Amino acid sequence: MDIDKYKVSQPIQLHQTVTKEVVEDADKKLKKLRKKISKLQDTMYAEGKYSILVCLQGMDTSGKDSLIREVFKDVNARGVVVHSFKVPTELELKHDFMWRHYEALPPKGKIGVFNRTHYENVLVTRVHPDYVFSENIPTVTGIEDLDDDFYHSRMERINQFEKHWSDNGVIILKFFLNLSKGEQKNRLLRRLHIPEKNWKFSPGDLKERKLWDKYQECYEDVLNKTSTTHAPWYVVPADDKDTARYIVAKTLLNEMEKYNFKEPALDDEVLDKLHEFVNQLNKE
Amino acid sequence: MDIDKYKVSQPIQLHQTVTKEVVEDADKKLKKLRKKISKLQDTMYAEGKYSILVCLQGMDTSGKDSLIREVFKDVNARGVVVHSFKVPTELELKHDFMWRHYEALPPKGKIGVFNRTHYENVLVTRVHPDYVFSENIPTVTGIEDLDDDFYHSRMERINQFEKHWSDNGVIILKFFLNLSKGEQKNRLLRRLHIPEKNWKFSPGDLKERKLWDKYQECYEDVLNKTSTTHAPWYVVPADDKDTARYIVAKTLLNEMEKYNFKEPALDDEVLDKLHEFVNQLNKE
Repeated sequence: MDIDKYKVSQPIQLHQTVTKEVVEDADKKLKKLRKKISKLQDTMYAEGKYSILVCLQGMDTSGKDSLIREVFKDVNARGVVVHSFKVPTELELKHDFMWRHYEALPPKGKIGVFNRTHYENVLVTRVHPDYVFSENIPTVTGIEDLDDDFYHSRMERINQFEKHWSDNGVIILKFFLNLSKGEQKNRLLRRLHIPEKNWKFSPGDLKERKLWDKYQECYEDVLNKTSTTHAPWYVVPADDKDTARYIVAKTLLNEMEKYNFKEPALDDEVLDKLHEFVNQLNKE
Repeated sequence: MDIDKYKVSQPIQLHQTVTKEVVEDADKKLKKLRKKISKLQDTMYAEGKYSILVCLQGMDTSGKDSLIREVFKDVNARGVVVHSFKVPTELELKHDFMWRHYEALPPKGKIGVFNRTHYENVLVTRVHPDYVFSENIPTVTGIEDLDDDFYHSRMERINQFEKHWSDNGVIILKFFLNLSKGEQKNRLLRRLHIPEKNWKFSPGDLKERKLWDKYQECYEDVLNKTSTTHAPWYVVPADDKDTARYIVAKTLLNEMEKYNFKEPALDDEVLDKLHEFVNQLNKE
């Protein structure tokens, strides 16, 4: 499978992208990938040189939560840390918009998953510019300050941050779960029809759905302006959940394989004496 | 007093700077400044739009600790938070060099003091490049990678970070406590002679003192490359402690005064009803 076709490496138009793609036996294939990801993560942990940041973005019901559950099922819990970014807290609002995301970066050896990410600062806050007022930014005195330039300069900043992280050993992969408006309708109806799924529904979901086109526009801009060689975006067809999970796992695994993680070598001094340690134990 | 003469706004040479300067009655003058700083900080807190980051750098014994104690004596403890950065912990080493400093940034309304700062990453680690190995940076495989370019690109990054912070409401002031080598000798001898001061001495201090020239060189480079309009460096003559404290306090106060901090206005709705609330209480 050619994973690179999902990578944003030249300008794209979202309405021309595929949302429904079905990979045969995607769930069975995923199982095999999971084992491999788990093994490589162990080695990455032992090496302690790299971390991986998996960024997940997508409209409501695009399947972010269940994707995380399925893709990372076999990875040692020690090795993965998931951060779901919700509405910023009072303390978070007292810092710049990157602060809470920076703090949550995975340490070397671990995979960090951002379930919604720092990109919300140029997505939900672009669709709802009034949200920015709660950040109390000195240069923002009215809605007229929140123009395209404002969001574009945030995107440039994000690119700088990601370059810095990448230079220091953070492997960054960004996935946009590309859902169709029709499939969102199906999934929302399911949440309303099935009592056990009711809790996932909020009336706000329908309000946001009305802003679908505006969101698509903002996503398109983000994908085109912030997909870089050191932190590429992948547009993942998300109408079929198994396929989306498989594509994300495959992309992650491919990337991990490039790095040839290695357990650190023992000091020569210790290595030379291995037989002595063996003898010492055997004599007990 | 013309504070701007201490600001680094054009290339400087450290050996041509003054280390001993005595302001008359500096301690008495400081007391007055402190009260004003405290008052302005209260308003800044109420406004919640800005924070202040005070960065302190200087050789051992240059007086950073006692300066913090004296300058911020009258500020509400709620309003100041001091971070003394020591040798990085294991967790901190698992993140990029800016991570622990970013996390420690003051929230809006507060003054954050960095006692030693993110600049140690281009100072102590430039004098001792082997310290960088413990950061496990993928691109650093040997001592030959730790050339001037390496440290200069760190400085550029730091400039970018500070620009981002500043754009989001962090007022940044950086002070280099400029001590002479002769005065350091006096102060180290005092630590050795006075039993109650012994604990502040470590044999390592003498090792570092031997690297005095190398440190001065690195400081000079930092001062010339990272003093920006949004985050200027001040070179403070530090051989006289009272004078150094006074200069730092005066610089801080001058900067605070520029911003015209204001308590936030009450909502018009509440304001219109103030007399009703008064009546309500009086009727009790």
